This record gives sequence, C-alpha cells and structure tokens, in this order.
Amino acid sequence: MPNISIRGRRMPESPIRKLAPFADIALSKGLKVYHLNIGQPDIKSPKIAIDAIKNIDLDIIEYGPSAGYESYRKKLAQFYVDQDIAISFEDIMITTGGSEALLFALGSIMDPEDEIIIPEPFYANYHAFSEESSATVVAVSTTIENGFALPSIEVIEKAITPRTKAILICNPSNPTGNLYSETEIRQLGDLVKKYDLFLISDEVYRKFIYDGDPFFSVMNLEGKEQNVIMIDSVSKRYSMCGARIGCMVTQNKDVIATAMKFAQARLCPPTIEQIACEAAIDTPQSYFDEVIEEYKERRDTLINELLKIEGVVVNKPKAAFYCIVQLPVDNTEDFARWLLDSYELDGETVMVAPAAGFYSTPGMGLNQVRIAYVLKKEDLIKAVHILKEAILVYNAKK
Amino acid sequence: MPNISIRGRRMPESPIRKLAPFADIALSKGLKVYHLNIGQPDIKSPKIAIDAIKNIDLDIIEYGPSAGYESYRKKLAQFYVDQDIAISFEDIMITTGGSEALLFALGSIMDPEDEIIIPEPFYANYHAFSEESSATVVAVSTTIENGFALPSIEVIEKAITPRTKAILICNPSNPTGNLYSETEIRQLGDLVKKYDLFLISDEVYRKFIYDGDPFFSVMNLEGKEQNVIMIDSVSKRYSMCGARIGCMVTQNKDVIATAMKFAQARLCPPTIEQIACEAAIDTPQSYFDEVIEEYKERRDTLINELLKIEGVVVNKPKAAFYCIVQLPVDNTEDFARWLLDSYELDGETVMVAPAAGFYSTPGMGLNQVRIAYVLKKEDLIKAVHILKEAILVYNAKK
Repeated sequence: MPNISIRGRRMPESPIRKLAPFADIALSKGLKVYHLNIGQPDIKSPKIAIDAIKNIDLDIIEYGPSAGYESYRKKLAQFYVDQDIAISFEDIMITTGGSEALLFALGSIMDPEDEIIIPEPFYANYHAFSEESSATVVAVSTTIENGFALPSIEVIEKAITPRTKAILICNPSNPTGNLYSETEIRQLGDLVKKYDLFLISDEVYRKFIYDGDPFFSVMNLEGKEQNVIMIDSVSKRYSMCGARIGCMVTQNKDVIATAMKFAQARLCPPTIEQIACEAAIDTPQSYFDEVIEEYKERRDTLINELLKIEGVVVNKPKAAFYCIVQLPVDNTEDFARWLLDSYELDGETVMVAPAAGFYSTPGMGLNQVRIAYVLKKEDLIKAVHILKEAILVYNAKK
Repeated sequence: MPNISIRGRRMPESPIRKLAPFADIALSKGLKVYHLNIGQPDIKSPKIAIDAIKNIDLDIIEYGPSAGYESYRKKLAQFYVDQDIAISFEDIMITTGGSEALLFALGSIMDPEDEIIIPEPFYANYHAFSEESSATVVAVSTTIENGFALPSIEVIEKAITPRTKAILICNPSNPTGNLYSETEIRQLGDLVKKYDLFLISDEVYRKFIYDGDPFFSVMNLEGKEQNVIMIDSVSKRYSMCGARIGCMVTQNKDVIATAMKFAQARLCPPTIEQIACEAAIDTPQSYFDEVIEEYKERRDTLINELLKIEGVVVNKPKAAFYCIVQLPVDNTEDFARWLLDSYELDGETVMVAPAAGFYSTPGMGLNQVRIAYVLKKEDLIKAVHILKEAILVYNAKK
C-alpha cells in the first residue's frame, strides 16, 4: 500500500473542528449543544445579497476572470476608498475566501523554510496555511494578563532572523477580540520597513468594533505601501461565511503579479457568490448598526456571565466576536471533550474550543478556551450557566 | 523593498491565459476574436441547476461541512454507483473545483522533492499544482504521430525512481482528446501496485466520449483501491465552470483523512454552488445526448476544416473537447501572438493556445497548438479559415 507523505501528516488538525466526533456523541444522546466554539454567526445575510442570487440572469455559469470580476473589484475599491484606504481595483485580487487570500500571499512571498512571525494566540489555520506554503511559524507570545497587547517592539525585533520574510497579524483579532492601536501598527510598519519584511494584516473583522475605538488599517501606513498586504473577506462582514469570497489587497505589483499565477492555476473564484458579494456592498449602514448593537449586547452579556464563575479570567473584547477565557481547570482539551461525551445539565451541554490549538508554543493556553459570542443573549446566558455548573462537577470528580 | 520569493517566481504562468494582453490589443482595434484557446463551453448550464439557485431558501449563507454537504456527497456517490463505480459518500470529498481536488491529493501524498510522472502533453496547471505541492514533475512523452497513446509500460517503468510517489493521467485527455483503453489503465494499475505508487486520474471529461468507445475509470481497477485517486468536477459536465465545485474520490482512508486537514483549513466549498450542483445531478439524459451530439458535430467540422490546411497534422479526438494540432509554422508562440497583435482578416482574428506550455520537456510542441472546439460550427469554420489564410501570410513574411 502506498505511503501517505510526512507533509500531509505535518498539516495540523483544526482545533475548532477536531472535537466534532465528540459533539456527535452528545447529539446521539439527544442533548442540545450550545456552540460557543465556532465563528458561524446566526445573523441574517443582507437581503440585497440573497436577492441578487435569486435574481441571477445567467444561462451559463461561466469562468470569471482569475482576479475576480472587474466590476466587483472596482466597487470594492470604492468601498475601501470610502474608509480612507486609497487603492485602485488593480490592487485587489478576489479570492475564494480569506483563506485563499492568505495562501496566495504566503505562497507568493515565502520561500521554503522562510520564517513568518505571528503573535500568539492566533487563528489556528495560520499554521495550516504556513505549512502548505512550506513556511516556518515563529510565535511571539502575548498574554491574557496584558490584554493580549503586542509585546514591545524590541521583543518582536529579537525574533527576526535572516530567514524572516513577514509578520502576520489579525486585526481585530480572532481569537482574542483585541484591537491593535495606531501606535502598535505604526511600530510594526517601521519594523518591516527597517528589515525589508512584509506586514500581512488579516482585517476580516474590521467592521466589528464595539466601543468607538478607532480602527487603523495597515493600508494607512504611508511610505510602507510596498511592504503591506491586507487580507479581507465577506464571511463575517455580511454573515456570508459560505460564500467563500475574500480578497488580497496590496499596492506591491510584484506580489499581485506572483499571486496571479496561483490565481490562474485555480482558474477563478466562484461566479454566483461574487455576484452576491458585489450586491452586498450596497448593504445599508442600518444593517451594520443593528448587527454591531446586537454583538455588543452579546459581548456584554457573555462577559458579565463569565465573571460570575469563580476563577475565570477574561478581558472584555474590543472587537471581532471572540474572546480567550482562562478557566479554573487544568486542561481545557480534556474538559471540552468531557463536556460533550460525559456531561449534561437538563439535557443540554456546551461546546468550546480549547485554546492550546491557537498557540504555537507547546504548553501555552492549556487552561484557556476560545469562546465565540455568535449566539442569542438568552442562549449565551444558558451556555455560561452550564459551563459554571460543569466546572464544579469536573473539578469535584478529580 | 521586500523580496518576492523564488517559490513564487517558479510558479509557471498559465499558457492559456498569458496571451491575454495580446487579445486585449486585438480587441482594442475593434477586431472580433474567435477563441479557440479556452475550454469555456457556450453550452447552457442545466435549467434544473439554475432554478435551484433562483429558488434558494436561505437567510444566512453559512459555512457548510469541510468535506461538502452530506446530502450532495450521497447523491454524488449514487451518480457514480450508477456508472458501476462502487463507492460510498465517505470516499468523496467535495472541493472548490477539480483544481482544489488536485491540490488536496498532491498535498496529501507528496513530500517535498517527491516525483510525479505525467504523460506529456498535459493540462498545463498540473505544473502549477505540483509546484504548489513542492513536487517534481517527471514527464513521459507521447507523440502526435502515435495518437498520444501511452508509451509502452516499460518506458513508464524506467521513469520510476525511489522518489516517485504517483502517476497522474487525464482521461479523457485535455489537451489531446485521447481516451485511454481499458488495457492501458489496467497496465498502469499493475504498475502502481507493483511499486506502491498512487495513480491519480483526472476524469472531468468522462461524459464527453463521441464514438461509443467504452470508458474505463481507474475506480474500476479491482484490488488497486488503496492506490487510486479520482479527480472530478462539474465544470464541463454541466457547463458550470464558474461554480468551482469538484471532488476527490478515493477508497484510501488515509488519503481522505489527510486531505481533510487541508479541507478544514480552508473551511468549506462554496455553499450556493453546492446547492446548484446537487440539483444538477438530476439533469436528464436528453441534456447530455444533445450536448454530445453538438460536440461531435463540432469535432467533425473542426477536423474536416483543419485537414484542408496544407501541412496540418491532427488526430481525430475521441473524447473531451480539445485537440493538439501541428501547424506548418516554426514557433506557435510567436504565431499566436502575431495573430492577435498584427493580423486580421476582414476585421476578425483567432486566438489559439501554443502547445509548448502543455509539455514539460523543453523544445517539445513548438509547432503545435491546442484547439478547444467549444464554438458553434459556423464559427469554427470561420476561425479555421482565418487560421489557414493567416498561416500563408505569416510564412510569406519571413
């Protein structure tokens, strides 16, 4: 029988999805499972986007251009210009989700064994994308005690080696809910300029900021245009995760030209979904106002409820819809499995994502989980109550 | 300014798309361009698929499962069972186009520097997918004189080294239009079994066979189930190239489990397009009968017209909708460019794909082009007439 390669085996398993078999156990017992583990919002997609799909006027679902439909790229460029990001449509490549945008960016700039610096905890799939691009992740740690703020620029600078090619951040951050300040972004900009590195910023949660904090994009770093690559996606902005439409934005023409080879190899992003996304750009501000208000209330509810649990440490997230929560248990991987295969409270249980999978450094985050607050307030209250009771039972049995 | 990596630079440019800037020149002069270069059919997508899109009943375009919707995988499994391919839905992973199915297959089985044997000429993007998977392509040549039949099994066997991990074929073949015989497929099956290799077969043109020749899938190789991976796609079958829905099919559970890590990293294939593809499985046989009849007539028309050009060598393709044509010109890359930027016949010209990009061995195919017969018969007649006149002018000017 032929051997499966080491390369495949090195691909990390998604920490968000690897609990799925245990969730199946809970479901097979007829339990209701509150999903605090995933970032699938229950918010409706904009009607304007759904209607665009229902009203398609096509006889043939044809290949589109490899970089995406020009009409969509132009409208999207204007969308960014309206947010004070001065780019043209030629700086935008439409991709099959933010995932593919990251694969294109890393594939274009990373040589095998090149290093990419990422503040941890980070979105777990950055590991997979780096592995697929034969790049090595070098983590710089941030801590819950410090609100997951960037470490001092000296600490990041120390992590730079002759093989470093890029720094990757997620801003606003999944999984921490942190929002980097203009000062932090400017410091990173100066650093990548000094060492001729790329600064890749995953800004897919840019619309989800709750307390009026200003958002400073890497695209606003004057004089660093050749160093900066922005990743974006419609998934969360319009609650259209299944559309798989994202984009890579950069004024660096070499990056665009190289990414184009990856884009041409896979031919094009999905046609129907691009039509929906082009329509979605006209989503009225009232949609976002409602959504932001809803998430803000959910955040406040979640944090209030979590702080009722003795021994919990959590920062109020400023943005996105996640937070990292330190629980009074030794090993959240075991705890999360146990919640699914051995626990119930009145026929219900909770699914959380153990945080260790969001760290690159072994041993970090063992007593933390990531919680996504994408459920209704009533459900969040119930879910956290179950968590509270479960922790007592779990710790008592040991 | 940061450096773009060698990795990115090694990615080949698509030979099908790299003439695009010259096509723009022709268009800017107001010329009509007959596209013989691309595989975008002008055949309508099945109404049943378009209707499924128009009738979607979704409020949220959510993430689907990473392996694709189970309902779609089950219906697709039955589709294959009906074609005497005995598989279950668990052997099927839905992918974002056949492109991603190949990336998942190669990513799962190839270690960096492992070798993959591919009969040339081959679909040019196999080069890109191999490069993205850090795999090395080892071409075994087939010739127009020999109808692009596989070389003897001894010749293929000689290409096997300790680093060989797989043999990749396209059956029916893009770009040659050839269909491999049951004998050829069985020989390949014995060979991969003998050396513990994988046999990957890209069968996306399986429905397009014109003269009643039997189609023998690698999935029908009894006793070789662990060695065989099939790639398929809806793009050509239902003229839904823009849907970007394909699949990887194998009974090798290790391959499925490893590919699942790649699938989870990119979250899921597009949701709306999967709904359309699930509906498309009920496309009535009459749709295919009409399409096959249409392509058969186009093929016959194209070949008849081509053989009117002195010095042309071409085999009548048995399947798919391409053929490799040897032209009486020295360098088809130069000729194809010249057709677009310097030639016209009554305000019209032709775009063809130089065949060198479909070969891995330097110097091969320099006097060949790939022609896709995806145009109406009248247009094919006009296009070949332009080609004929152009060759005279082109050769006279030198």
